[in-house]
Amino acid sequence: MKRKIRMGMVGGGTGAFIGDVHRMAARLDGCIELVCGAFSSNPQKSKASGKALFLSADRVYNSYYEMFQQEAELPEGERMDFVSIVTPNHLHFEPAKLALQSGFHVVCDKPVTFDIEEAKELKKIINRKKMLFALTHNYTGYPMVKQAKAIVAAGKLGKIRRCIVEYPQGWLATRLEATGQKQADWRTDPTKSGKAGAMGDIGTHAENLLEYITGLQITHVCADLNTFVQGRQLDDDGAILLKLNNGAKATLLATQIAAGEENDLRIRVYGEKGGLDWSQMNPNTLLYRTLNKSLQVLRTGVGQQAKTTQAAIRIPAGHPEGFLEAFANIYKNFALTLDQHLEGKKIKALNLDFPTIDDGIRGMHFIDKVVESAASNKKWTKI
Amino acid sequence: MKRKIRMGMVGGGTGAFIGDVHRMAARLDGCIELVCGAFSSNPQKSKASGKALFLSADRVYNSYYEMFQQEAELPEGERMDFVSIVTPNHLHFEPAKLALQSGFHVVCDKPVTFDIEEAKELKKIINRKKMLFALTHNYTGYPMVKQAKAIVAAGKLGKIRRCIVEYPQGWLATRLEATGQKQADWRTDPTKSGKAGAMGDIGTHAENLLEYITGLQITHVCADLNTFVQGRQLDDDGAILLKLNNGAKATLLATQIAAGEENDLRIRVYGEKGGLDWSQMNPNTLLYRTLNKSLQVLRTGVGQQAKTTQAAIRIPAGHPEGFLEAFANIYKNFALTLDQHLEGKKIKALNLDFPTIDDGIRGMHFIDKVVESAASNKKWTKI
Amino acid sequence: MKRKIRMGMVGGGTGAFIGDVHRMAARLDGCIELVCGAFSSNPQKSKASGKALFLSADRVYNSYYEMFQQEAELPEGERMDFVSIVTPNHLHFEPAKLALQSGFHVVCDKPVTFDIEEAKELKKIINRKKMLFALTHNYTGYPMVKQAKAIVAAGKLGKIRRCIVEYPQGWLATRLEATGQKQADWRTDPTKSGKAGAMGDIGTHAENLLEYITGLQITHVCADLNTFVQGRQLDDDGAILLKLNNGAKATLLATQIAAGEENDLRIRVYGEKGGLDWSQMNPNTLLYRTLNKSLQVLRTGVGQQAKTTQAAIRIPAGHPEGFLEAFANIYKNFALTLDQHLEGKKIKALNLDFPTIDDGIRGMHFIDKVVESAASNKKWTKI
Amino acid sequence: MKRKIRMGMVGGGTGAFIGDVHRMAARLDGCIELVCGAFSSNPQKSKASGKALFLSADRVYNSYYEMFQQEAELPEGERMDFVSIVTPNHLHFEPAKLALQSGFHVVCDKPVTFDIEEAKELKKIINRKKMLFALTHNYTGYPMVKQAKAIVAAGKLGKIRRCIVEYPQGWLATRLEATGQKQADWRTDPTKSGKAGAMGDIGTHAENLLEYITGLQITHVCADLNTFVQGRQLDDDGAILLKLNNGAKATLLATQIAAGEENDLRIRVYGEKGGLDWSQMNPNTLLYRTLNKSLQVLRTGVGQQAKTTQAAIRIPAGHPEGFLEAFANIYKNFALTLDQHLEGKKIKALNLDFPTIDDGIRGMHFIDKVVESAASNKKWTKI
Repeated sequence: MKRKIRMGMVGGGTGAFIGDVHRMAARLDGCIELVCGAFSSNPQKSKASGKALFLSADRVYNSYYEMFQQEAELPEGERMDFVSIVTPNHLHFEPAKLALQSGFHVVCDKPVTFDIEEAKELKKIINRKKMLFALTHNYTGYPMVKQAKAIVAAGKLGKIRRCIVEYPQGWLATRLEATGQKQADWRTDPTKSGKAGAMGDIGTHAENLLEYITGLQITHVCADLNTFVQGRQLDDDGAILLKLNNGAKATLLATQIAAGEENDLRIRVYGEKGGLDWSQMNPNTLLYRTLNKSLQVLRTGVGQQAKTTQAAIRIPAGHPEGFLEAFANIYKNFALTLDQHLEGKKIKALNLDFPTIDDGIRGMHFIDKVVESAASNKKWTKI
Repeated sequence: MKRKIRMGMVGGGTGAFIGDVHRMAARLDGCIELVCGAFSSNPQKSKASGKALFLSADRVYNSYYEMFQQEAELPEGERMDFVSIVTPNHLHFEPAKLALQSGFHVVCDKPVTFDIEEAKELKKIINRKKMLFALTHNYTGYPMVKQAKAIVAAGKLGKIRRCIVEYPQGWLATRLEATGQKQADWRTDPTKSGKAGAMGDIGTHAENLLEYITGLQITHVCADLNTFVQGRQLDDDGAILLKLNNGAKATLLATQIAAGEENDLRIRVYGEKGGLDWSQMNPNTLLYRTLNKSLQVLRTGVGQQAKTTQAAIRIPAGHPEGFLEAFANIYKNFALTLDQHLEGKKIKALNLDFPTIDDGIRGMHFIDKVVESAASNKKWTKI
Repeated sequence: MKRKIRMGMVGGGTGAFIGDVHRMAARLDGCIELVCGAFSSNPQKSKASGKALFLSADRVYNSYYEMFQQEAELPEGERMDFVSIVTPNHLHFEPAKLALQSGFHVVCDKPVTFDIEEAKELKKIINRKKMLFALTHNYTGYPMVKQAKAIVAAGKLGKIRRCIVEYPQGWLATRLEATGQKQADWRTDPTKSGKAGAMGDIGTHAENLLEYITGLQITHVCADLNTFVQGRQLDDDGAILLKLNNGAKATLLATQIAAGEENDLRIRVYGEKGGLDWSQMNPNTLLYRTLNKSLQVLRTGVGQQAKTTQAAIRIPAGHPEGFLEAFANIYKNFALTLDQHLEGKKIKALNLDFPTIDDGIRGMHFIDKVVESAASNKKWTKI
Repeated sequence: MKRKIRMGMVGGGTGAFIGDVHRMAARLDGCIELVCGAFSSNPQKSKASGKALFLSADRVYNSYYEMFQQEAELPEGERMDFVSIVTPNHLHFEPAKLALQSGFHVVCDKPVTFDIEEAKELKKIINRKKMLFALTHNYTGYPMVKQAKAIVAAGKLGKIRRCIVEYPQGWLATRLEATGQKQADWRTDPTKSGKAGAMGDIGTHAENLLEYITGLQITHVCADLNTFVQGRQLDDDGAILLKLNNGAKATLLATQIAAGEENDLRIRVYGEKGGLDWSQMNPNTLLYRTLNKSLQVLRTGVGQQAKTTQAAIRIPAGHPEGFLEAFANIYKNFALTLDQHLEGKKIKALNLDFPTIDDGIRGMHFIDKVVESAASNKKWTKI
């Protein structure tokens, strides 16, 4: 790279959980520079956030449309290259669309949009304008997730038969949204979150992880969605039986009422010849089982690993890499791709390893069909 | 107890896995004595097994009917008190029925019978003749399973909302039955195993464990059963969505094709105020989660525990108790109950902590409805 | 075997922890029968214990000398074959000596005697009378400990360089002996326990395990013994630097004041080519590390294992075998050896896999030299 | 903070492991900006590194003295505020001294210098010139290490009795330095590493962690140092018995020949009332044991935690924070302190939570005395 890639941000005023995460992830490798932002719909708050982030005042905007307009007028070499959109779900589409139309590439938090129509429209613009778009399904950024994908792709498990993916959290076991907690508030509000609650927030991560690792696609769902906490409008728990496009079967559990659980996303994949087991809370370990042999504990950076895995590792084995590093891998690959794009080079396959609008559309389809299935007496709903 | 309880055995010729397990379990506490057996339908083999077990030749029988007849003629104080039936599923009913009719109490391996009609008939005889009957759903014999049940019963989790029970094994990931392996052979044969494979063999353990710990009953199932190994007739894998009678939801997974897995029965139970997590392969540990507090690692014998837990512990904390000890707890409680029964005493509630014909009938219902659901396009099947 | 081996017992009145353990261990495999006992120095208590164990009253003795005398007069085929001595340390020597002189083989709890002179004298008698003697260093009975020994013996680790063995317990973190707790009472009393406390009670287990697995011998110790609980006379904690006879180094920690610890005996052995890691509280797992490769998790009963390992396993992989099963492996091998001895057969090497008087003497030497080193300003004390 | 703190760097040319780590750590929180560097003694290499880091060419220097001289001439608001020194051990002192004398604050990799005299001299300059100096004993940056320190300080363990700290690595199990591997090369060379090998490289981390968490000081050592790999000049393995200044005892193991181990720094601390157990490879978990109660699993961000812990956490519980985040905590606290220093404010105690020259001197003392003890026949060497 000849220069740092320049990032703007929509949303993520100081104090917002996910805005900080995106910024730390973008900073980690030193190849992205935050140059501007519209951090809040409240101009005061946006200014204050920009100041706290050491931005010059003239690059902190009152609104994203102002930002896109004014940045577009800056000379190349100064204006932002892409924008990172870290607002609640219902506020993804408009800024993403406008950014793309204004010639800015986009990194967007997940789920990609409020509904599937919006997602499809974004895809059209992306394709038409040949823009880059990354969706932060960040769990695919972990080195051992990439290693799992590589093992499956290499056929080491044989044909996949049974998958189990689960994502238990406990933070919504009580009616947290009633206390004014901001994260809980919009996530449980159907006008902001979309038609699904837990299933949209974390179920889509599970769905994306399953398809990423196995290289398979979900074809049918049989969903049971629940709202256990009284007064809540959206699902806070759900379990799904799944069919995959090679004949394999899976279960997917996403719950936010598993009292006492932190963030225990876990996936197990079993094929004819072996199985894999990965847990987000112990992310540098990947259990690899084979028929009649000893369990192998694959570890970040130990032994021969796939190129995608190696590219996702920053420090030697035994020095734990965590959530932010995995998140940063999305940003790093996006930045490297964008750099090649801007330089007019052929983009390296290795750097294309980040989720795109297609993952976003799959996720919105998934939400749609899961909600449809949950309301149906029929066992299987096609996806 | 004034004397050892005397046990006979049907099946379990030397070398049979489960026969040995029953004998070790029965021996462990020194209150049961094996006095006779019809160990095989092959008289030669039965004799050889009896000899290897140091039984006197005249107490080793050619058949179970011979055994019941001849033992019944022996004086009290010499004849067996109960019979342990450790044959394949299709050979449970006849000897159990005959034993009960001949005045012998019964310990029977699970699932209780070949089909539900047989199970119901056994119950009628048991009730009519006021006999004792234990079913070896042995996993309920673990101290920390009893502790889990006690915690739920004490209301410490609040109302139960979400349960996850899973039982992955990998030993049938290939067509082992084609190699002549005896255990695989009958378990995959519908004329011996009954209408379910994995779901009957291990799914019923999961179902029983779920109901034992939660004190709840399954009311509806939505089942997906699979036969992944070509040429196999019965299910070797299945996943089920469940409704419980308090409004809680659960998932149950039972698979024997999870390549590389040993015997990893695990159950998680989440209520309004907390959650429990227990794994059979690490059985002396019970994870106890509560809202916003530190995870507690409950351990066999550490701290204040329920009476049922204490009664199930033989050695101090930190000295691992295993599968055989849990299995022996079924036998011990059965023997203590039988002793009180024989002495005409009121039976202590503490000793009644073993699975009975009712658990057996629940299990057969479960198999029936799971198989029915698997064949149906309807989402929910009532149980 | 043509018949069960007949066991008598000295000590172990009902309620005594270790007496029960020995009995359960002896019972488990059905090849040993408890036929008599002198369970307490209090004749009343001995009688009551015998009754509770369903022994006929004439085989329950007032003292061990009475027992040895009267049993010796019984006809072969009726009298006991060996005696199990489960009294506190200071009461091992006299009954063991008398038993051997009376023609009874011996199983003895550890440490073998009160001091090394007694141990050496026992060895003389054993050799002179060609008797069998087993010492219950039970931790060597675990299948994965045997597998560890086999891996080292096969040279898979290369030359051993560094070992770490540790045995933290917490039960004596307070002055439990002052509460009248029986186990604490004699173990902290130098007139009963011998010259070492924690180091004798559990340090010798660690020492024995280290030498068993590595096949090496300790040549020098540099010991630091501590008594942390006020008013206690013997060490309740100690750490030792060790030299082994191949040039390897080791550390050994034995402490009973590690507040909150249960019984976490653990050993790690590193050689030029790999390392092993085994923990008693998770005994069916053996971690096997090699240079630059994935960690392998060896598990009881999974894959190809050593003959000694296989012989120590009773049930399929994934069904946890625990402390009692490991303990029972000492008894089983002793019984099989004794049977061959009584039958005048050549004894199979496989069955000789139990600790003997030589292990006992090594242990007493170890205690002597550790106590000597602890009192010395010199760094190394030769053993 | 009004502006970002400006950092220069000595050493750490692109590709150097630890240089990258320092840069990522410095970047993570967005409050430090790398503005200049002398990345290599080879000017070409320094230039190339600076370019890859997107520095302007005029801020990339041929040598550190050139850098200190030229930066000192830049106006405040442009020149660097502090320098990060990430060279091998023997190249810490000169640049650190010159930086301090030139008015630049210093962050220095550990161990602080080549020998203790250098360390003491640095301290004099620091004190005389009232400069800030941070030493990157990064393991103290982990949130749960801070929580452990807080628990001890709050007296929850009672008086500390027994500590166990160990740091096994396996990367030097073979003669890696003979292959030209750069990291191995200088670390095993006494002219670059100093008088100790493993003990200097990782033993000092263990020592620092022990003193940080317990708040105690080592008073005596009894050391056994070994060089297991033939041809190597420095220790690659060592075990030490320790006395602490409150009467507690400890063991410290540091080995780089534990074949197959990654980087498994672990510390256990036992007091009269409880114990703590923390492992670097699972850093978001802290095990907390108490007398006769259940083990508690304390987790980063779960429940009420110390202020120092909270200040070290960036993301919600269950999102693993790793090595880089812990390392970044050193930089963050240093930057916050430096900012307050530059602003002439009273420095907040909370931000002073980073290792200083005093930790460096303790470490050099430790190395000295360990090496002295290893050569001595005397058991204890005073520190």
